[in-house]
Amino acid sequence: MLYGYNGKILRVDLSQGIISADEPDESFYQHYIGGRGFISYFLLKELAGGEDALSPKNRLIFAAGPVTGAPIAGGRNSVGAKSPLTNGYGDAEVGGYWGAELKQAGYDAIIIEGKSENPVYLWIEDGKAEIRDARHLWGKTTGECQELIQKELGDRGVRVAQIGVAGENQVRYACVINDLSHAAGRTGMGAVMGSKKLKAIAVRGHQKVALSDAGAVNSLARWVRDNFKTNKLAAGLSENGTAGGLTALSTTGGLPTRNFQQGTFDGADKISGAAINENILVERGGCYACPIRCKPKVAVGEPYNVDPIYGGPEYETIASLGSNCGIDNLEAIAKSNEMCGAYGLDTISAGASIAFAMECFEQGILTEKDTGGLKLNFGNAQAMVQLIAMIARREGIGEVLADGVTRAARVFGKGAEDFAMHIKGQELPMHEPRYKQGMGVGYAVSPTGADHCHNMHDSLYVKRVRDELKALGIFEPLPCQDLSAAKVRMLVYGSLWRHVLNCLVSCVFVPLSTRQITNLIEGITGWEVNLWELMKVGERCVAMTRAFNIREGMTKADDYLPHRFFTPFTSGPLEGVSVDKGDLDRAIDTYYAMVGWDKNGVPTLAKLQELGIEWVAEA
Amino acid sequence: MLYGYNGKILRVDLSQGIISADEPDESFYQHYIGGRGFISYFLLKELAGGEDALSPKNRLIFAAGPVTGAPIAGGRNSVGAKSPLTNGYGDAEVGGYWGAELKQAGYDAIIIEGKSENPVYLWIEDGKAEIRDARHLWGKTTGECQELIQKELGDRGVRVAQIGVAGENQVRYACVINDLSHAAGRTGMGAVMGSKKLKAIAVRGHQKVALSDAGAVNSLARWVRDNFKTNKLAAGLSENGTAGGLTALSTTGGLPTRNFQQGTFDGADKISGAAINENILVERGGCYACPIRCKPKVAVGEPYNVDPIYGGPEYETIASLGSNCGIDNLEAIAKSNEMCGAYGLDTISAGASIAFAMECFEQGILTEKDTGGLKLNFGNAQAMVQLIAMIARREGIGEVLADGVTRAARVFGKGAEDFAMHIKGQELPMHEPRYKQGMGVGYAVSPTGADHCHNMHDSLYVKRVRDELKALGIFEPLPCQDLSAAKVRMLVYGSLWRHVLNCLVSCVFVPLSTRQITNLIEGITGWEVNLWELMKVGERCVAMTRAFNIREGMTKADDYLPHRFFTPFTSGPLEGVSVDKGDLDRAIDTYYAMVGWDKNGVPTLAKLQELGIEWVAEA
Repeated sequence: MLYGYNGKILRVDLSQGIISADEPDESFYQHYIGGRGFISYFLLKELAGGEDALSPKNRLIFAAGPVTGAPIAGGRNSVGAKSPLTNGYGDAEVGGYWGAELKQAGYDAIIIEGKSENPVYLWIEDGKAEIRDARHLWGKTTGECQELIQKELGDRGVRVAQIGVAGENQVRYACVINDLSHAAGRTGMGAVMGSKKLKAIAVRGHQKVALSDAGAVNSLARWVRDNFKTNKLAAGLSENGTAGGLTALSTTGGLPTRNFQQGTFDGADKISGAAINENILVERGGCYACPIRCKPKVAVGEPYNVDPIYGGPEYETIASLGSNCGIDNLEAIAKSNEMCGAYGLDTISAGASIAFAMECFEQGILTEKDTGGLKLNFGNAQAMVQLIAMIARREGIGEVLADGVTRAARVFGKGAEDFAMHIKGQELPMHEPRYKQGMGVGYAVSPTGADHCHNMHDSLYVKRVRDELKALGIFEPLPCQDLSAAKVRMLVYGSLWRHVLNCLVSCVFVPLSTRQITNLIEGITGWEVNLWELMKVGERCVAMTRAFNIREGMTKADDYLPHRFFTPFTSGPLEGVSVDKGDLDRAIDTYYAMVGWDKNGVPTLAKLQELGIEWVAEA
Repeated sequence: MLYGYNGKILRVDLSQGIISADEPDESFYQHYIGGRGFISYFLLKELAGGEDALSPKNRLIFAAGPVTGAPIAGGRNSVGAKSPLTNGYGDAEVGGYWGAELKQAGYDAIIIEGKSENPVYLWIEDGKAEIRDARHLWGKTTGECQELIQKELGDRGVRVAQIGVAGENQVRYACVINDLSHAAGRTGMGAVMGSKKLKAIAVRGHQKVALSDAGAVNSLARWVRDNFKTNKLAAGLSENGTAGGLTALSTTGGLPTRNFQQGTFDGADKISGAAINENILVERGGCYACPIRCKPKVAVGEPYNVDPIYGGPEYETIASLGSNCGIDNLEAIAKSNEMCGAYGLDTISAGASIAFAMECFEQGILTEKDTGGLKLNFGNAQAMVQLIAMIARREGIGEVLADGVTRAARVFGKGAEDFAMHIKGQELPMHEPRYKQGMGVGYAVSPTGADHCHNMHDSLYVKRVRDELKALGIFEPLPCQDLSAAKVRMLVYGSLWRHVLNCLVSCVFVPLSTRQITNLIEGITGWEVNLWELMKVGERCVAMTRAFNIREGMTKADDYLPHRFFTPFTSGPLEGVSVDKGDLDRAIDTYYAMVGWDKNGVPTLAKLQELGIEWVAEA
């Protein structure tokens, strides 16, 4: 008996219209767990390398994990595919309720292959799946689409994961939206979904997955409910959301501002978590079975008219569309966030692309002729809002920016590359590598390009991060501006653990200790697990995603930071601070060696063998 | 508050007669735990490399661990130094009661440096230590010496770790004897002790080390007491001792016989655990707070007159002095075992040296002229008994054999090297590398030369070994005659765990699961520990011991098997079976890569940094 899973993976061939189910054996589940583990496994096994990410050959995988559907913040799933943004490994995690519903509908994952001729959506209910016409949904906002699907299926309880017009138009950083207000944002998964003409996946399930020890799981869930308010991070998130630390970050000098030109933003107070609470918050939302409720729901009246069904802006969104565009107009940011939700755009890449365009404009690389009359100066909130719609619809300069900064820079020419803040083609999230230098290394070596989700080990002021590292055997804190081998070790251990959470799929904000999470997995699955085994699952993810990228032709040269970060800040608290290129290169080499890659960044055969995944070498 | 330790390491400079104590901080204890962890740390830090192992510069370290002194088979300690046998890293573990007494006397370890002018012994009682004259003890058997010390200290409860005349004479495989019947056998620690003119360490302690959660520890101890009889391995050991499997091993073809010429011995039944029980067993003995009592105590009458105070022969002893010398006379083997105890000789190396001499004799390399008239044919029990005394006293041919087979072969010449079954200068223990091929790899790469204590992963017929590997994430068993990368992975994971047990210092025969041992460490120390951290402690040992050997000039060329094992058995169940040299070389290379050594077998800087022991690179 397999606890915590359904033992079934739904497979949908949209070209053929064929639906089937894989039933992997238990050892598959034990070795790869879920989420990124599943995705990297199937992408390696089922792609050959070199496929166009937007071709029917790509696989789009929705993967749950053992925590998904469990009564303890179990709303999350991962979405993965070859990324149209990086042409390498792509995946993104998302919260909400859809993931739990998928598990309760009888599946642990969905593998989508091929491409439908006409727009379709997938309808999954209690172990049955059906491909349905979606021509009437194509072009609709996510809000309209969810409404229509729920109506035609006659059930308000149906959960919908879907793309907006950005995904339909294959904007390379289009996202997948769960439950309207939760986004699998990064790496362009919405574009892949759009390329397959798959508008949505609607799910409804009435059967909770059997837990091995429901009592133990419920007791951990109760512990979270009773104790999260005493945990500084969780309590802060519950009160101020992810943007709670924005002002402090600006004061310290680490808030990305005007396309990473500065680290401090004058208007920080106006766009902080506190400002949201004071001015536009309607209520706080959250995810399935999570008491923390860190998600803002905001409403704004004229002229922006923001609808709370799309939630509200998170830290990444506010910094990306706010400080990084030089904008301190919270209502405009909230509007942009709503539009990104309605159109299905990743707010980070959208904001970063706009910031890039603004700097190009200020540098004279773009003129009003190029922008269709938009004065794209930093701080122009009105222009930002217009540009978002243009990107989603691929209109005017939006057509170029829809392909991301790296491709847009090539189109613009005139040295625009200097202002394209990306790694491997993916735009930087809102963590400044001159401030959090360990994260800079993490950015450079991440399989998905610039990605902040598995390298928060600089944030040692957060007790949770310190506790995580302590559980992994690292007792001494180190400063943010440190690229020593000891710091790289923190990245390696810390990010392995984050990979584990990604496989589970469990939210990093739930204040469970490493130990409690180990107990949780045992309670869910009935397996006797320990941290060594779990970390090895994380190591498998690191090796498999790297192998995927190598098969796609990536090399050591793709592990870098934009050269802006080697230039010191010229103002602010971190004036004079930059990343030392030599230190960074050494740190990258050290990272390679620590995770078992050779000096060219290729996982050694012995490392694959040590992880029991020798098959990766052949793949 | 440091639980499970005293926080004090006794330091004795015998040249100066100075006694002091180190008080390391808690992080030292957390990173190195005890046993091999302590020994490799201090040897790296305090030696410079190139010292003569028998010079005053060598350090002799007696190291306990958190389990030592705990009420759960807590009698064990390790003894370490640069080895006079291998000129590399040396240590040996030993059971009995002395280790527990040391902890209760207030110390976690003892570091002996320098050399006394005249024989002395060390007397430690309840946090005080004193160097005492031992001129009257020099030349005495271990039995006489213990008796005299207890008498002069007026306390029968005094525990004694000591050398016999073999150690006094610096026989290179002299051992340290605890409580008369327990030996820190391998790597010649008794010779180092003899070189320092230190006859014995007598200890008495009345203060049990504080445990963080005595209830949890006691409950695990109770569990062992109540359940060991349902564990096949422990129950078998309790009934038949370590020699219980000897007959089966002979039937399978894996019993070292006549200096590893065969794998099956006709007289196996006569020297088995069952034969001991039937014919010479007086009672079973054991170690501090251990209910299993796997140690035989034997008595034999005329003509051999074996005294039960020295215990009785274990599997290694019986095979080494029995089948491997072609001897099926159990009484003679028991006598030889008694003499090794009384003189302080490692029974494995003693038997292996005699077997080597026997083969040289049969090959005509040695004649009766060389042996002083002894007819050193395989099977000559009388000659064996005489030879043991000659080795301990360095008399006649014993003078040559006292330096071990590698040095003796150089003296004998005439191709004697072909019959010298050693690795790095240490004689092979009684596990046949053509049968247990995974152990063969373990032999080759072990820091102490041929050593069976941390590479039992071939023994997958033993449920405990399977369970251990399962806990480490390896679920599929593999055959003994397999040198695949998957098998090397078993060696790596399995031996890391054995290194952890060595640090604890905990006996592998206690039927506690990996999980229970983790809980035990928590109960003892109060630290929240997990298997990841513990395995990293094991990795530190692997790296530190290797670094020590490299500093001493060892290279990849020192990781080998004697070429006999590349020649197939010509008879028995394993007729035609040999180790494939190419497979072995590949396995060794794979081992290097998996543990983070470069292709020359040198730990990479990144591995040291990953383990938080960058200092090793400088040492």
